[in-house]
Amino acid sequence: MSSPFLGELFGTFILILLGDGVVAGVLLEKSKAKDSGWIVITSAWAFAVILGVFVSKAFGSADAHLNPAVTLAFAVQSGDYSKIPIYLPAQFLGAFLGAIAVYLHYLPHWKETKDQGKILAVFSTDPAISHPPSNFISELLGTFVLIVGIHSIFSTQIPDVTTPIGVFFVGILVWVIGLSMGGTTGYAINPARDLGPRLAHYLLPIPNKGSSGWKYSWLPILAPFVGGSAAGLFLKLIL
Amino acid sequence: MSSPFLGELFGTFILILLGDGVVAGVLLEKSKAKDSGWIVITSAWAFAVILGVFVSKAFGSADAHLNPAVTLAFAVQSGDYSKIPIYLPAQFLGAFLGAIAVYLHYLPHWKETKDQGKILAVFSTDPAISHPPSNFISELLGTFVLIVGIHSIFSTQIPDVTTPIGVFFVGILVWVIGLSMGGTTGYAINPARDLGPRLAHYLLPIPNKGSSGWKYSWLPILAPFVGGSAAGLFLKLIL
Amino acid sequence: MSSPFLGELFGTFILILLGDGVVAGVLLEKSKAKDSGWIVITSAWAFAVILGVFVSKAFGSADAHLNPAVTLAFAVQSGDYSKIPIYLPAQFLGAFLGAIAVYLHYLPHWKETKDQGKILAVFSTDPAISHPPSNFISELLGTFVLIVGIHSIFSTQIPDVTTPIGVFFVGILVWVIGLSMGGTTGYAINPARDLGPRLAHYLLPIPNKGSSGWKYSWLPILAPFVGGSAAGLFLKLIL
Amino acid sequence: MSSPFLGELFGTFILILLGDGVVAGVLLEKSKAKDSGWIVITSAWAFAVILGVFVSKAFGSADAHLNPAVTLAFAVQSGDYSKIPIYLPAQFLGAFLGAIAVYLHYLPHWKETKDQGKILAVFSTDPAISHPPSNFISELLGTFVLIVGIHSIFSTQIPDVTTPIGVFFVGILVWVIGLSMGGTTGYAINPARDLGPRLAHYLLPIPNKGSSGWKYSWLPILAPFVGGSAAGLFLKLIL
Repeated sequence: MSSPFLGELFGTFILILLGDGVVAGVLLEKSKAKDSGWIVITSAWAFAVILGVFVSKAFGSADAHLNPAVTLAFAVQSGDYSKIPIYLPAQFLGAFLGAIAVYLHYLPHWKETKDQGKILAVFSTDPAISHPPSNFISELLGTFVLIVGIHSIFSTQIPDVTTPIGVFFVGILVWVIGLSMGGTTGYAINPARDLGPRLAHYLLPIPNKGSSGWKYSWLPILAPFVGGSAAGLFLKLIL
Repeated sequence: MSSPFLGELFGTFILILLGDGVVAGVLLEKSKAKDSGWIVITSAWAFAVILGVFVSKAFGSADAHLNPAVTLAFAVQSGDYSKIPIYLPAQFLGAFLGAIAVYLHYLPHWKETKDQGKILAVFSTDPAISHPPSNFISELLGTFVLIVGIHSIFSTQIPDVTTPIGVFFVGILVWVIGLSMGGTTGYAINPARDLGPRLAHYLLPIPNKGSSGWKYSWLPILAPFVGGSAAGLFLKLIL
Repeated sequence: MSSPFLGELFGTFILILLGDGVVAGVLLEKSKAKDSGWIVITSAWAFAVILGVFVSKAFGSADAHLNPAVTLAFAVQSGDYSKIPIYLPAQFLGAFLGAIAVYLHYLPHWKETKDQGKILAVFSTDPAISHPPSNFISELLGTFVLIVGIHSIFSTQIPDVTTPIGVFFVGILVWVIGLSMGGTTGYAINPARDLGPRLAHYLLPIPNKGSSGWKYSWLPILAPFVGGSAAGLFLKLIL
Repeated sequence: MSSPFLGELFGTFILILLGDGVVAGVLLEKSKAKDSGWIVITSAWAFAVILGVFVSKAFGSADAHLNPAVTLAFAVQSGDYSKIPIYLPAQFLGAFLGAIAVYLHYLPHWKETKDQGKILAVFSTDPAISHPPSNFISELLGTFVLIVGIHSIFSTQIPDVTTPIGVFFVGILVWVIGLSMGGTTGYAINPARDLGPRLAHYLLPIPNKGSSGWKYSWLPILAPFVGGSAAGLFLKLIL
């Protein structure tokens, strides 16, 4: 039954279960990981990408993008847009389902947590300082570094020998984007990572939840698409 | 003298010595690692798995499961249940002996520590919020991710080239399960990891110890077995 | 369009964007990474080097030095000084541009931050205790370890098999230099890393900025050059 | 000029410069790494071993033991004691010189630090709870795990392919011994690591220094030798 659709779906599911999961662990009341800090959040998101990629490959996606901005960027670079209608629905759906799994995993912790902002933060990003033009630059720049980084990593691996190690380096890339560029907008850098869980937040019966932050929601969708396209174009022109 | 039995026994011994050891280091009074946090606990458990696997392989277990739920899961996937009667006793015995080694290693620290909950936590898991159905889901889901993750990692390695690197990725997998899913029940995800040390806690003459938490003890045994079987079945059906 | 010049330029740009970026994330007010500590700063600088090297190689620099002291050191060791006039301008320019990108990425955070020392620290290093002879020894010794470390790592890799893994070990090297030797002067160990961003700090219209610390600026340029040359000579003589 | 003696000397020098260096960074007053915690100390010691091994190999020691207990253990296992008179003097001398380099690197920080215990802790280990029989067990057990771990790692690598990766796994091994077993006695697990720097502490003109702790000094020498010999014998008998 494995297929590119299923691979992108399962991979993004794992990405969000483990990625949003660490935010739940750090922010929700009574969690054993409460307040364990930025190194915990950024390392777990990095490892979530690594695991998501392996799962995605194992279930049929040779690309294992897990991110609509990555799919768009490499479509722009290659000129082949045929994967978009298959990968993007799988990625958004996988992210939505992954967020539901996080909700279930931390079930008794929601009603212990009274802070509406923290509950939303488990699911979706919000800016440290609300300033849309700057926030847009941050998300655009973060996604640009992601795409150029992925390209650079795999173009310098030795085929068939260090390919799996390339996946590890992509984890390092996501880790350092989080560490170094995540302080401003929480590094969505992935439209599915932000929209899927936001929709889950909106629909799920979460105790103490407040607004789903729809006013900001367009930015972590559009900016990564723009940043990814720009990076794809940049790679096409320079190389 | 090396054999699958000895390999599983020594590997699980090392897993628990280093895994329960870090909890002792973080929780026991006067330890130099006191209160060093979630990143310390989760990284050490990850590395404990990596080392446990290498030791297990070196002493004769080609599989190096160290975990009855892993053995059951791959038995369900493959249909071959013949390893269960050899591996499981070795895993439970290794975990029990590893916990005794932790007791000896931290010998003067027990009587300095007055908190009975912390002393039990060195050995076995307990839920952040006691709610058996949710706790069951947490342990089931964590084990499911473990099995699907292990399968995905090794099915995407290059045989004979990146196999040892696959072991590293299993460490990353256990690290991120801890970081992202450990906040609820402390991620037993391994019946031997929980029962062996709990029995050691019950039998050893530990100063200031209290209840061995037998009331909860069935859950981190049963839920990983159910989660592992479900994951094995899932892999069998999908792939 | 890829070339050694462009490779060194882009690689050093990424190094500084991610390296100075993490300092911004940890020091600037309202950042989500605020006060997340030394492990965050040192790991991000290590990963910044790893990513910078891959980007540098992908865009045309087979060496991927990203550091004038490294270029000088291996020129001294090999006796071939021909790369200096190409690599050094690219490295200084890349570092300058990388610092501008950090300024843009954290745009709304500057006016929230009133501490002039922290704003300068995002860009350039300063000593924990001002004592030029000792500070000189620290930077010299750090750079010496960097060069001997790089040489040792690559001379023990297996050609074509573990070369990309060598890049990871260089990251580990930079990480441990930061962890173990960074406490004194903040481990510039790279003239471009310090001068480029300092110039950006001097020229950019940063709210609340103070002195650009020119009085100290010669030291993290000269000491790494001396340390690198000494290491190059040491390798030439011993090996 | 490279030779096994020089390799063990330089490798152990780097081990102690970076290992004792991180303790200086975390404990000495006004250091930028002050109070950065157990994860910083244990990761830096792990990376110090990795770098020490590469330097040791690059300068002529194919074994890169850096530790008299490791040399003794593998002599016991193999029955060949011929390396002991060459390696051990190099290891002790390298450790002594590495500690002098730490003294120079942190030169202005000593007089800012008034705590005699912290100054000694930069150089040598001391027990969290003074209880010689238990402390002996801790150091013996830590060294036993080190030897069995090294053997297990390298016996499961693929020759010529993952050998450099084996060095990384040794780093992981030292990391987890620190994380999980270091809380009791500070994991000397290496006679040279403890005696060399203690002698440097005794001889150097360090402001505010107190006792060099000679009363305890025999234990982190003898216990690792006993633990290493026991592990060598264990490997010889079982395998």
